[in-house]
Amino acid sequence: MNFCSNCGNRVSQKIPEGDNRLRSVCDHCHSIHYENPRIIAGIIPEHNGQILLCKRAIEPQMGLWTLPAGFLENGESTLEGAVRECAEETNAEVVDPSLYAVYDIPHIDQVYMFFRAELASHHFGPSPESTEVALFDEDKIPWANLAFPVVRATLDRYFDDRKEGKFEVITDTIQPGWKGRLE
Amino acid sequence: MNFCSNCGNRVSQKIPEGDNRLRSVCDHCHSIHYENPRIIAGIIPEHNGQILLCKRAIEPQMGLWTLPAGFLENGESTLEGAVRECAEETNAEVVDPSLYAVYDIPHIDQVYMFFRAELASHHFGPSPESTEVALFDEDKIPWANLAFPVVRATLDRYFDDRKEGKFEVITDTIQPGWKGRLE
Repeated sequence: MNFCSNCGNRVSQKIPEGDNRLRSVCDHCHSIHYENPRIIAGIIPEHNGQILLCKRAIEPQMGLWTLPAGFLENGESTLEGAVRECAEETNAEVVDPSLYAVYDIPHIDQVYMFFRAELASHHFGPSPESTEVALFDEDKIPWANLAFPVVRATLDRYFDDRKEGKFEVITDTIQPGWKGRLE
Repeated sequence: MNFCSNCGNRVSQKIPEGDNRLRSVCDHCHSIHYENPRIIAGIIPEHNGQILLCKRAIEPQMGLWTLPAGFLENGESTLEGAVRECAEETNAEVVDPSLYAVYDIPHIDQVYMFFRAELASHHFGPSPESTEVALFDEDKIPWANLAFPVVRATLDRYFDDRKEGKFEVITDTIQPGWKGRLE
């Protein structure tokens, strides 16, 4: 941030009174501009035991596979955001979504929230955001070609929990450089 | 947002190519400025069956009681943020925190995440953010003087779950105008 979004003048990095962190503060109108982590909401869509993945049509990680997920928008709940992202990326509707995983990724200022859900039907397909959308059996998941470590972590844990028949909400942190399961 | 935080020129409200929402887009450098919900992380601190609350020293809702909680900062996990806020607002340390509640408040672009935890000791006290910090039995909670509906919702549900002896992670949405339990 170089300029104040309120008045257009230069900002400086300062610790405001009563605060203990550097913030972008306007030299002219004194607005304080806070920056905070963003939420990425997504779905683990299951259908007859298979998992629906999409191949990214856009950067970052274009050409790699991922669970449908994206930035939560103002005005929507995390569940609404997850369902919307699933629809936008896979053209699929889901039923009975429930929170499954909260992954903090503090080094990139992100918090992922994944809901598990059943597909409402066998209907799904590509979109402007996904060149391919396909169902995968557990033993066919393309581990080495998943777009993000958090997707590897989520799926790996999901299959473990599914074997146990017990899905409690999991919370974990993805550390810098962590790769997770690759095969 | 009136001005571009990158180059300082005017922004306009436009739907960028490939998007479906109005965003603040710079007329000069074409930066797109996204705005997203913020996370508020907090603790439900318990000690010998009592709950630690703090009386707000600052607006909004100055003078009303609340659970320790505040905006998650870049670079920290939701748990780290919750523990930090508890320390800043109540001077208390906690042990064994675990995720208890995720409340969406979409009409104000917030997501609350509360962790339940035991106080590490009987040590706590006021701070620049809290004029008083005190332990309350369930039947002494100042329901009508709690700062935010989400705090009423969280505590009400917490006491119900504690009676059942069963704490699963809860997810819910706070609607505009919802007041919750007041006595």
